[in-house]
Amino acid sequence: MKNNVIITIGREFGSGGKAIGKIVSEKLGIDFYDKEIISLAAKDSGMAPEVIENNDEKPMSSFFFSLALDARNTIGRIDSPISQQAFLAQFNVIKKIAAEGKSCVFVGRCADYALASFENVVSVFINADMEDKIALVSELRSLTKDKAIDLINKTNKTRANYYNYYSSKKWGAASSYDLCINSSRTGYEGAAELIIRLAEIKQRILDEK
Amino acid sequence: MKNNVIITIGREFGSGGKAIGKIVSEKLGIDFYDKEIISLAAKDSGMAPEVIENNDEKPMSSFFFSLALDARNTIGRIDSPISQQAFLAQFNVIKKIAAEGKSCVFVGRCADYALASFENVVSVFINADMEDKIALVSELRSLTKDKAIDLINKTNKTRANYYNYYSSKKWGAASSYDLCINSSRTGYEGAAELIIRLAEIKQRILDEK
Repeated sequence: MKNNVIITIGREFGSGGKAIGKIVSEKLGIDFYDKEIISLAAKDSGMAPEVIENNDEKPMSSFFFSLALDARNTIGRIDSPISQQAFLAQFNVIKKIAAEGKSCVFVGRCADYALASFENVVSVFINADMEDKIALVSELRSLTKDKAIDLINKTNKTRANYYNYYSSKKWGAASSYDLCINSSRTGYEGAAELIIRLAEIKQRILDEK
Repeated sequence: MKNNVIITIGREFGSGGKAIGKIVSEKLGIDFYDKEIISLAAKDSGMAPEVIENNDEKPMSSFFFSLALDARNTIGRIDSPISQQAFLAQFNVIKKIAAEGKSCVFVGRCADYALASFENVVSVFINADMEDKIALVSELRSLTKDKAIDLINKTNKTRANYYNYYSSKKWGAASSYDLCINSSRTGYEGAAELIIRLAEIKQRILDEK
């Protein structure tokens, strides 16, 4: 196959999207970028890693976010400078890595939107049944069921706001991605298999061009 | 493999969902049900096929639908008897066929909802880019671009209303299905491959139980 394929994975918190992306990158022997984007974006932009981390996948503070939403309705788009700089630093690093031309996996951070002009990208979204998200998050963070539900809902709301705000698409809508998978129904290995098959289909389509 | 798998396909009008379902059924050598459900439901319920066809995947007339939505908000769920009978006749036939225990493909008609209690079901949703939906619908129905756009939007709105009204889920949301595929990115053959792989994963999961 002469074409490399870049795989972007959007995911609900607690859906196993990161673990699934890791399995895909290991099976294909390609690079994997999740939190790694933060230090790369810091190095590249000169911003402090903590500043990027604090604004990572958050549109801006919810107070400023609602102010900005109001403002957008009346006077157009307004961004809090630092959160926007953090977004742009990550956005630029994602494009820079993709331009190197190697196959790789990006998790989160609107990578599908950053790479919208790249032909060799497949975009995936991973969701899961609520009970599985609760089980994963309670274990990972040692939380009670109620606290886990609260964290899942808050984190996913923030991710949705970030994605909807910066991209022109809707987080978690089938129409925003090439492929959406419920990991509760496929297991992590099954989800990885489907993503790898999607990458193979994309390579075939590019080969045939 | 000792388990049969039933595949339900929800789809945007113009996405090629029916053609993809047909490819899947031919490759797997299993039965295919789309419009076939109408005559089977008629035979089974004693209703006239035309009555079921007229109410096929339509919640009720849009006038009555908005009335009913208003009514639901204030006094609870109200259904137009005939459209509900047509829904139930199809709902029952889908469950009856599934209970026969053979692998098969169902297209549309809330089959995923009808079969929610069946363990051996995988649910798929097919969407496509607007330009591809327009190309398909203009050709199939010999329509101008504008008329095709109009028909696509109206049909998909009706399908969404039907699905959202009868099921407890949201049409076209990733969280409502096991797998969502954009057929513009995979082609019909690619979408069929992914669905077949999903069915194999389901069979493996059932085998391991």
